[in-house]
Amino acid sequence: MYSNVDELFSKMTKRAKKSAIRELLKLTKKPGLISFAGGLPAPETFPSKELEDITREVLEKESALALQYGTTEGDDLLREQITLRYQKMGLKITKDNVAITTASQQALDFLGRVFINEGDVVIVEFPSYLGALQAFNAFGAKPIGIESDELGMSPVLLEKKLAELKAQGIRPKFMYIIPDFQNPSGVTMPASRRKEIIEVAHKYEILIVEDSPYRELRFEGEPQPTLYELDDRGTTIMLGTFSKTFVPGFRTGWIIADPLILDKFITTKQSVDLCTPAFVQRIAARYMERGLFDAKLNDIIKLYGHKKNIMMDAFKKYLPEGVTWTNPEGGLFLFVYLPEHMDSEKLFMKAVENNVAFVVGHVFYCDGVSGKNTMRINFSYCSDEQIVEGVKRLGKAIREYKD
Amino acid sequence: MYSNVDELFSKMTKRAKKSAIRELLKLTKKPGLISFAGGLPAPETFPSKELEDITREVLEKESALALQYGTTEGDDLLREQITLRYQKMGLKITKDNVAITTASQQALDFLGRVFINEGDVVIVEFPSYLGALQAFNAFGAKPIGIESDELGMSPVLLEKKLAELKAQGIRPKFMYIIPDFQNPSGVTMPASRRKEIIEVAHKYEILIVEDSPYRELRFEGEPQPTLYELDDRGTTIMLGTFSKTFVPGFRTGWIIADPLILDKFITTKQSVDLCTPAFVQRIAARYMERGLFDAKLNDIIKLYGHKKNIMMDAFKKYLPEGVTWTNPEGGLFLFVYLPEHMDSEKLFMKAVENNVAFVVGHVFYCDGVSGKNTMRINFSYCSDEQIVEGVKRLGKAIREYKD
Repeated sequence: MYSNVDELFSKMTKRAKKSAIRELLKLTKKPGLISFAGGLPAPETFPSKELEDITREVLEKESALALQYGTTEGDDLLREQITLRYQKMGLKITKDNVAITTASQQALDFLGRVFINEGDVVIVEFPSYLGALQAFNAFGAKPIGIESDELGMSPVLLEKKLAELKAQGIRPKFMYIIPDFQNPSGVTMPASRRKEIIEVAHKYEILIVEDSPYRELRFEGEPQPTLYELDDRGTTIMLGTFSKTFVPGFRTGWIIADPLILDKFITTKQSVDLCTPAFVQRIAARYMERGLFDAKLNDIIKLYGHKKNIMMDAFKKYLPEGVTWTNPEGGLFLFVYLPEHMDSEKLFMKAVENNVAFVVGHVFYCDGVSGKNTMRINFSYCSDEQIVEGVKRLGKAIREYKD
Repeated sequence: MYSNVDELFSKMTKRAKKSAIRELLKLTKKPGLISFAGGLPAPETFPSKELEDITREVLEKESALALQYGTTEGDDLLREQITLRYQKMGLKITKDNVAITTASQQALDFLGRVFINEGDVVIVEFPSYLGALQAFNAFGAKPIGIESDELGMSPVLLEKKLAELKAQGIRPKFMYIIPDFQNPSGVTMPASRRKEIIEVAHKYEILIVEDSPYRELRFEGEPQPTLYELDDRGTTIMLGTFSKTFVPGFRTGWIIADPLILDKFITTKQSVDLCTPAFVQRIAARYMERGLFDAKLNDIIKLYGHKKNIMMDAFKKYLPEGVTWTNPEGGLFLFVYLPEHMDSEKLFMKAVENNVAFVVGHVFYCDGVSGKNTMRINFSYCSDEQIVEGVKRLGKAIREYKD
């Protein structure tokens, strides 16, 4: 290798740091350790048996299509099925509003490619999803976090910040919002709050990105309308994925947007990977067409609702006074607040000693310093017994913690 | 939508033009038209039956892995199988040199992300693969084409250009070479030429990218050593894919490189799509493990060799005097040179009238103006009868052509 190879790397590569969280997570590969860190769906929710039948049929009857190159915008039948599903939820869309992506992470990357020049401002929730922050940062974005309360992002603080930015001649490229069972906080925005946020967005002419991977995983309370359907000016871009409601191993997601904007994503995808695997797209399309999606979804919702309740009970029983947490109505994650003086990164080391792990909360705060006393907990992957035992160990680690 | 939405798009998006070739290809969606334009493998080469068995077994025995998130660098078993295959060819690599990509196009995009800042120079063959040129251009690369002869890129012209650039203080980020059955030209570089190119690259400390999607599809002549194995300084990055030797519908490819460089690609992939679908990777791994890959490959080689011969015979019979072409020893494409005065874009319209299509050659020349009298012809997709009839129509279109 050339000794001066480093000077060949792009600014983008030089900007990409090894994720600190990845380094921490390596410590959790320890036998016997119970991890609440990942975001993995429970493997018992995978419809292997149903997929055997569908895959066989797809290979028998339509392999010339399913094993060939696909179109960049995605399999027509899958786009139709996704369109139908959202139409039933009340969205006024056609197939021309839908493009398939190699799961949500690709859509997040595309947001960076399509909108962000180095130094551009984007608005995010505070805290927000780490994978999104990383994708935007890769393009040199300056994320600005807007504080949230128990109903999600504050429209008052949002408007204040946008006015401030406008006075400086700055128009953020978009605002990135996870309105349902937010990652990491578990908070859901009610319809009234959604309307207020959209109103502010329109006033300042800011695009809205609605990332909604967990939306269909509601085990309590009433579904809230999507930002997409509430937005009467068509300025919302919605992201969806099968990763939590079907299988992550297919890496199949979608973008729903105004065709003017969707077209930019499709042109981007052509250069990025040409198309998402036709094979998994066609299998997913047939799976939906047969109505298997809904049947399985109900099982998943029941399972995760049950697991969340187990965790809530264990929290009450085993976590010491002064620790609080969110109680999500759906999704896979909740957020824990330790007493102010505690540092969850220090606690992490103690927790790993006790054979339990979580994600330190500060990585979700785009300023890199807030949320030192927070942690994200996943409740979808562990068994009931592991949840109880893991929370017990977590409680012990918190009690053993020393500043 | 906001009337001023255009000002939100990034420089990258503004740079991405709708591909002219895509617009032309829309004209070929005409019933009865015989297309030599695409790069599609013949669907009769798809091992549907074998995949039925393997998929069933994967779903039965390892669905918890195959339907779950995978690691960013790729399925371990698949990386092992690919490593084994290249070790047998003589490459001194381990699994740590191999990362899986969402097929070759993603690897081309990664080259842009990892190395190219706006305005950076990259060296390409002249002509070169359009998908690569597009991927590099997305990042604002300045491609410089080095003329080729019947043995591939000229080392003399390469050295001249690199000396010129060095005098200007410019170090190209890499040189992009398709050494086997080049796309579009069909030309293969002999070992001696490869060594000369590597020598020049080392002298000027330029990284080499060896894109080799067709390497294993050799139906005549002797295999030439890879640039990767000839490069004793480890400065070559090799790209491979299953798209032409197995199935394109899996979108599974790989990068082989020094771990120092591979690490940058893996960090990039984490932000771009997290991982390639675990499902298709595991199926592909089991397919290779069972030795099915080689058996099928032999069939594909026989079929494409046969189709190429049919096309050569038809060319001799039906193309008018003054038209010449390359005669590839493998791969999917050949290149046709029309008489100098002819413009293949004009001919394209005449050809479509005659119900036959090809890709206009000038799109493969990075200066955007050379190669007006050339065209790329694919011989892998059409049936024998379609090849003969298509060439007959092409001959007629050439005869009918008027300046």
